[in-house]
Amino acid sequence: MASINEEVRTHKYTLTEDEMPTQWYNIIPDLPAPPPPALHPGTLQPAGPEDFAPLFPMALIMQEVSQDRYIDIPGAVLDVYRQWRPSPLFRAHRLEEALGTPAKIYYKYEGVSPAGSHKPNTAVPQAYYNKLDGIKKLTTETGAGQWGTALAFACALFDMECEVFQVGASYDKKPFRRLMIEVFGATVHRSPSDLTEAGRMLGADPRNQSGSLGIAISEAVEMAVKDPDTRYALGSVLNHVLMHQTIIGEEALLQLAKAGDTPDLIVGCTGGGSNFGGLAFPFLREKMAGKINPRILAAEPASCPSLTKGVYAYDFGDTAGMTPLMKMHTLGKDFIPDPIHAGGLRYHGMAPLISHIYELGLMDAESVPQTECFKAAVLFARTEGIVPAPEPTHAIALAIREALKAKETGEETVIVTALCGHGHFDLTAYDEYLSGNMVDEQVTEARFAEALQNLPQVPGQ
Amino acid sequence: MASINEEVRTHKYTLTEDEMPTQWYNIIPDLPAPPPPALHPGTLQPAGPEDFAPLFPMALIMQEVSQDRYIDIPGAVLDVYRQWRPSPLFRAHRLEEALGTPAKIYYKYEGVSPAGSHKPNTAVPQAYYNKLDGIKKLTTETGAGQWGTALAFACALFDMECEVFQVGASYDKKPFRRLMIEVFGATVHRSPSDLTEAGRMLGADPRNQSGSLGIAISEAVEMAVKDPDTRYALGSVLNHVLMHQTIIGEEALLQLAKAGDTPDLIVGCTGGGSNFGGLAFPFLREKMAGKINPRILAAEPASCPSLTKGVYAYDFGDTAGMTPLMKMHTLGKDFIPDPIHAGGLRYHGMAPLISHIYELGLMDAESVPQTECFKAAVLFARTEGIVPAPEPTHAIALAIREALKAKETGEETVIVTALCGHGHFDLTAYDEYLSGNMVDEQVTEARFAEALQNLPQVPGQ
Repeated sequence: MASINEEVRTHKYTLTEDEMPTQWYNIIPDLPAPPPPALHPGTLQPAGPEDFAPLFPMALIMQEVSQDRYIDIPGAVLDVYRQWRPSPLFRAHRLEEALGTPAKIYYKYEGVSPAGSHKPNTAVPQAYYNKLDGIKKLTTETGAGQWGTALAFACALFDMECEVFQVGASYDKKPFRRLMIEVFGATVHRSPSDLTEAGRMLGADPRNQSGSLGIAISEAVEMAVKDPDTRYALGSVLNHVLMHQTIIGEEALLQLAKAGDTPDLIVGCTGGGSNFGGLAFPFLREKMAGKINPRILAAEPASCPSLTKGVYAYDFGDTAGMTPLMKMHTLGKDFIPDPIHAGGLRYHGMAPLISHIYELGLMDAESVPQTECFKAAVLFARTEGIVPAPEPTHAIALAIREALKAKETGEETVIVTALCGHGHFDLTAYDEYLSGNMVDEQVTEARFAEALQNLPQVPGQ
Repeated sequence: MASINEEVRTHKYTLTEDEMPTQWYNIIPDLPAPPPPALHPGTLQPAGPEDFAPLFPMALIMQEVSQDRYIDIPGAVLDVYRQWRPSPLFRAHRLEEALGTPAKIYYKYEGVSPAGSHKPNTAVPQAYYNKLDGIKKLTTETGAGQWGTALAFACALFDMECEVFQVGASYDKKPFRRLMIEVFGATVHRSPSDLTEAGRMLGADPRNQSGSLGIAISEAVEMAVKDPDTRYALGSVLNHVLMHQTIIGEEALLQLAKAGDTPDLIVGCTGGGSNFGGLAFPFLREKMAGKINPRILAAEPASCPSLTKGVYAYDFGDTAGMTPLMKMHTLGKDFIPDPIHAGGLRYHGMAPLISHIYELGLMDAESVPQTECFKAAVLFARTEGIVPAPEPTHAIALAIREALKAKETGEETVIVTALCGHGHFDLTAYDEYLSGNMVDEQVTEARFAEALQNLPQVPGQ
């Protein structure tokens, strides 16, 4: 309950435009060991820049393999960022009161962006670098639609065409993000479609009819490589995408310093890993430098727990097997997770960079079942007033678990979490929860084991 | 298109928490003549505070009739405001470029609030003052749902019950704001309902089955007066509601000063008038003091043009005729406007205070047809990245009309408009527009004349 007294509390830590970071952070040179390279799927040799050239402009390929710790954000990208950045860091006073915890809960809120999530942080630079290269059209995949919305927005700004392959189940059940993509002027196809060979081939199997991110990626990649004026854009997983998101963590570091607090826990949800990496990497840099010592925790869905239940192996990024092989925590490219509402977390693999950092022991991961997430989300909405997207409810649920532990121990734990988007297009999921019809995902070891039988054959794995 | 050059542009003018205004502005003592009083519907004598006591707590009744120019915002209300206030003032650089206009277009954005609109600015103090009086439950009406969402949020914060009567047409067609109200813990009834006498009586007429704001108000008022622990909350129209919204204009004045510009035009959409009054009244104060000289313009829908097509007369605020009589521009309490998507603007009357100011010649009004609004909104979304609610598209459309006039004359007109909410729950309206199926409202003089035949009999009118 809101305080009736006249207490002055700071809910929102903001930065001025002048305080906005002007560089992205590349964590790779700071790691104690380099991440394993991507492999060409035919030769099984490390993939070179030329292998990525049909997909991405050279500026992004160079960022993908860069050894520079910091990369300047171009002025035109900063100019777009300035519309909604720096984004606010909130202190969840009312949630803390409702929990009765001495813990301090901060959340970095990216739902203030035009697309309502963190995704424009990378969509805008990706569109910009493609535009500089004279590219006319971008293709991509989207699940629930947050990434597609962000890329459609970015393409509208730079006057480029945009075609989005949306996972069939989301296309059918959640029309509103598709409509928003269309408001921004892009075209949306239900995946699997009959526009691509991959779509026709994979769509022939009835089990694939509801689609998956892996299938939609195959379709978007195929459409991009066929046309020299078209490139592909990926919303997560790759090094350069995670790097673009580090502006989240860089800002949060400055804002937490303004709040005068030192973090004990950094927690973010992980689908492909870009939201988590964006928040966590700058804090991890400070941790590796010995300046702070927070636990760094990935929150993944029980239905698709690539870090806690997957294997660390070379696998394809897509279902048809068109991408380079990446060493990552994977449930297998054929794994189809239960249709939980957090569509953005239903990806079989984890970003290679996060997988590597996890292997290095620099971070932890826990999985959360769906109903615990929504229970946390409803409490969050009724206290903080923001209805979270289903994806970040996983991080909120873990933040609440930790806050309740702090209540037991009496410790003033400082928790920082990433609220990467709002749930305005996910209200049917809340309706399902509030009406008592939501069930937890069914997960069995046997099911995880089955999809892992089809890992590609790579020497040494 | 976004600039590829390295230009530094300020898109967003923010204020610090310390700069946030701590008083609401009451325009009444600054007006050259006092507004006519509300009348008791039985005696036709000026209504006294006791006539309003079954509906509102005394603190709000005193604000309704206050002659103080400024009223302190309580600390507990400021504390809640601080979560999202001060709200940003944006400069629409990219929209200006797309229009090729020398005009400068600023928009004050209230969609950053928890409910996604300006409505929490008054929902929070209304819940607060009721809570202080020991009230347990608030009832209200809502159209599209912005006001119901805001009051549900406010009641959640102050641990009060909340029951919302939603206009039937919106309840049926737009379930998402209803779901959001339920996420915040409130109860929603389809209006006309069988829970109230007014609902049963008015619902017996088939023409009323889709409901109206006037009918929903009758139901909410009836439910409130029956229970001593329950009061009613209104989202617009009344003096105290408009006053709570003046924090919008007070902030915008400070932000425009930071931008170094002087306004030539203030334009906001008018349904009941609270968004418009909230932005315009502080600017009007400065204008009456001779410090600035902007044109002040209300944008109303062609389907429900109370200022430009209504009469200035005493009328009821609700359809059943339960409220005090208010002198206002009205289309008649029985007028049922075409079902345009801007549900928040489909109210038969205009705030008495705005009606009075319009009569004094201190402001203008223009009406806009629906398709022009959505054409403007799509251009706005594709350049500024924000999908507006249908209501403020009316103000955007008039801002664009003026910006295009400025293109003709070459004048650097400074336009300030109120973007009072986002359209995340209105995407089916955009779909209708983009697919070419949207039609303009059908309006005839005969239809306006018909509803005006039932005005209440008041001596001298």
